[in-house]
Amino acid sequence: MESVKKADPAIIVIFGATGDLAWRKLMPAIYNLYLDKWMPEKFTVIGVGRAEMDNDAFCGHLQGGIDQFSRRGKTQPDEWKNFAPSLRYLKMDYKDDASFSALNDEMTKIESEWGVPTNRLFYLSIPPQSIEAITTKIGTNGLAPDKNRGRLVIEKPFGHDLESARQINNSLLKYFDECQIYRIDHYLGKETVQNILAFRFANALFEPLWNRNYIDHVQVTVSEKLGVEDRGEYYDHAGAMRDMIQNHLLQLLCLIAMEPPVSFNADEVRNKKVDVLHALRTFKREDVHNNAVRGQYGGGWVQGEQVKGYRQEHGVDPKSNTETFAAIKFFIDNWRWQGVPFYMRTGKRMSETSSLITIQFRPVPHHSFPTEAAENWQQNKLIMNIQPEMGIRLRFQAKRPGLKMQISPVDMEFDYKESYPTGTPEAYETLLLDVMLGDATLFMRADQVEAAWEILMPILEKWESNPSVAFPNYASGMQGPEEAEALIAKDGHTWFAMPLNNH
Amino acid sequence: MESVKKADPAIIVIFGATGDLAWRKLMPAIYNLYLDKWMPEKFTVIGVGRAEMDNDAFCGHLQGGIDQFSRRGKTQPDEWKNFAPSLRYLKMDYKDDASFSALNDEMTKIESEWGVPTNRLFYLSIPPQSIEAITTKIGTNGLAPDKNRGRLVIEKPFGHDLESARQINNSLLKYFDECQIYRIDHYLGKETVQNILAFRFANALFEPLWNRNYIDHVQVTVSEKLGVEDRGEYYDHAGAMRDMIQNHLLQLLCLIAMEPPVSFNADEVRNKKVDVLHALRTFKREDVHNNAVRGQYGGGWVQGEQVKGYRQEHGVDPKSNTETFAAIKFFIDNWRWQGVPFYMRTGKRMSETSSLITIQFRPVPHHSFPTEAAENWQQNKLIMNIQPEMGIRLRFQAKRPGLKMQISPVDMEFDYKESYPTGTPEAYETLLLDVMLGDATLFMRADQVEAAWEILMPILEKWESNPSVAFPNYASGMQGPEEAEALIAKDGHTWFAMPLNNH
Repeated sequence: MESVKKADPAIIVIFGATGDLAWRKLMPAIYNLYLDKWMPEKFTVIGVGRAEMDNDAFCGHLQGGIDQFSRRGKTQPDEWKNFAPSLRYLKMDYKDDASFSALNDEMTKIESEWGVPTNRLFYLSIPPQSIEAITTKIGTNGLAPDKNRGRLVIEKPFGHDLESARQINNSLLKYFDECQIYRIDHYLGKETVQNILAFRFANALFEPLWNRNYIDHVQVTVSEKLGVEDRGEYYDHAGAMRDMIQNHLLQLLCLIAMEPPVSFNADEVRNKKVDVLHALRTFKREDVHNNAVRGQYGGGWVQGEQVKGYRQEHGVDPKSNTETFAAIKFFIDNWRWQGVPFYMRTGKRMSETSSLITIQFRPVPHHSFPTEAAENWQQNKLIMNIQPEMGIRLRFQAKRPGLKMQISPVDMEFDYKESYPTGTPEAYETLLLDVMLGDATLFMRADQVEAAWEILMPILEKWESNPSVAFPNYASGMQGPEEAEALIAKDGHTWFAMPLNNH
Repeated sequence: MESVKKADPAIIVIFGATGDLAWRKLMPAIYNLYLDKWMPEKFTVIGVGRAEMDNDAFCGHLQGGIDQFSRRGKTQPDEWKNFAPSLRYLKMDYKDDASFSALNDEMTKIESEWGVPTNRLFYLSIPPQSIEAITTKIGTNGLAPDKNRGRLVIEKPFGHDLESARQINNSLLKYFDECQIYRIDHYLGKETVQNILAFRFANALFEPLWNRNYIDHVQVTVSEKLGVEDRGEYYDHAGAMRDMIQNHLLQLLCLIAMEPPVSFNADEVRNKKVDVLHALRTFKREDVHNNAVRGQYGGGWVQGEQVKGYRQEHGVDPKSNTETFAAIKFFIDNWRWQGVPFYMRTGKRMSETSSLITIQFRPVPHHSFPTEAAENWQQNKLIMNIQPEMGIRLRFQAKRPGLKMQISPVDMEFDYKESYPTGTPEAYETLLLDVMLGDATLFMRADQVEAAWEILMPILEKWESNPSVAFPNYASGMQGPEEAEALIAKDGHTWFAMPLNNH
């Protein structure tokens, strides 16, 4: 039996409560936490928005989202009847101090009814340009007077570049301590991502091999079949580097490359992660083209369906220079990783949706087997599937059954879904509970955000000052542009992809 | 496509051709080699026995065995019709030189018909006490005049102790060179046993961990549900040490512990294996009881069926002191293995039939995770299933899906039958083909046999001079005597067994 550490009573204020994220992710997560008895005994969710809406309409809207998106499927009437009274809606004008006072009054009233110390969580599910304004109002109107009980949750993007990230961080620090700020990278809440640390540091088997002596190179691929969908306007000002590499992919790299933490204390883990970012080799502007490749999708076919090119998407500049694909070769200048390339790539409208990390080990130092036995020989690979597959496989060489000695690669496999058929919680459940518990381990600290921007700035600047003349340079449904193949091929490697028939 | 190296034309003479081994194993193996096109274009099998029998009766007898025991099931009439003319039967008197001359004439006649260089294989499927007499007759009657083409295949037991083994080896060397002698340990022909070398030396991943720095201890269990069946008379003069440890188990130990061979040349591999035997720590007589445990089964229940005790079995002395179970703790005194115990056990009438090797790795040097997250933490284990399961599993720690960090053991698994559903050849197919091809890698060289006896003699002598007063000391259907649990428990370990529900 797990010993359950319950969170203190909490008022969760969701700014942007009628928006997509709240509807698809946040409320299903809170509802599942409630069903699994993880919510505090006393809690209230105050949904805040600019629209006029009464409580009933708000509840009905949220229930519709949960019915559709919860991993458990439709709500059960009895359970919903008990849960719904904890929800209320408040219309606010984000520019008006009176609105914030009213919110404060509401919270104070609830707290005095409860009569116990209560956490105040402010979840900002709003466009990035509104973050500074709203946090300032929260601060100036005294909504989070207790540093230990007021917590601010913000979503990426954390700035548009190094300078704006610094500015936002400084602005937040006027009214919040760093320890009150929870920057969500939902990737870090995924079971398979959390398992990277368990895999590395709860097993004595892998850590001795986890360095430049045994590892040849590392690959991280995060590919999506989808295009920009209805996010064209936002995406055209971001691109793959800002939307994916700056956060998800660099965080994965940190988890793979970090030194063993002394404990799972939030700052200890984040210190070890930021150490990796600080050790990343800086790109000189003149070397960018040797280490980074950008791409933009044109029209094409994805699973038998014809789709438009990026420049034809709604909200996108028809002459857009924004990259929808990026591949970068990183080096980590420290004792553990010197000389080991980390190849990272991500893109939209690629041939499949898949996030995987591949650790390729060095060749055997000497082939004892006769040449003809080893024709199919491969280097060992450890493959961590983040999604949609969730598992770990180790590709090694075995004797092929038969009367001749023939070595060929086979996989040893661990599949989360097979081992734990009851399913895994959603990333937002993990992360929301952590916010309530005050555990910031899985959240991005300001210095991590800034260090990630810092390493990417030379590439971003070079690309912005030199628009691509080749865009669009890959057809939808492909593996990205040819230059990405060349980036890794010139080192004698190829991008690893799971065989499609394994899916 | 595999490039097939065909064996030269061969005359295979099976002494004891009407016996059980020929019926169940040798002829099904030869027939399958024939169907798979591995037999030489020209070959003849001459079955030799003391019974009166004509060719037709002999063929009918063998066909019955193949129908019953071949991995392919019943013979197909067309195929059998093509195969059967290659079989013939010869009645012999093993004491009579004239019989051997007749056999020689028969072979010479076949060879001159074929008109090509032909290998002569003498397979001695006969009681051990007849081996010397028959090989002497083969030698003195000049049946194997060509050192390169005459090959002698013998079955275990290779002697009863060090002295008799030396005597047999010396006697064989009067008429055969060591390179002509193929001592069969059918265990070494099993796919999963052959794969140990592929696993260790075709992968760069495991060898760096394969030593005292990372391995805590090694276990080898070869257990059988069966009792002595109709082999009581033989077994009562042998026992578990001579029947199993001296050959199968020590050979497995060699494969696990040997240094990397430079090549897969037969003598290179066997040199590396014999190095391990030479490095095994010698038992002092006064220490035997600390390192070796013997057992003998009493009556009991095996899978719901009541079975007799060993002393009640047919052919067994009712006061027998023979061990049907043995467990030994070995140490290997070399740089790689100093201080790493190798626990080996084997027995009859145990709870299940299973051969498995377990490599247990050392604990992690430091637990980063909080104590409550690691309650189910286990040391890493690599488990090689030899039979009836055929595969490799790696037991490691993963995050249990859920909102708390909980580390628990899971298995990464490779299953031969799943990966290669077409089935694996029988050990005797592998080994017979190797004899025809002249590849002695998988066969026991004289020095291996003698070194294995040498290490076991102090235990055997101690046990023989001190009959057990406790026999029978384990009930049929159990895991052996309690002392075997104590042998490993005093070092803080337990015997590893696969959970029954995985079978």
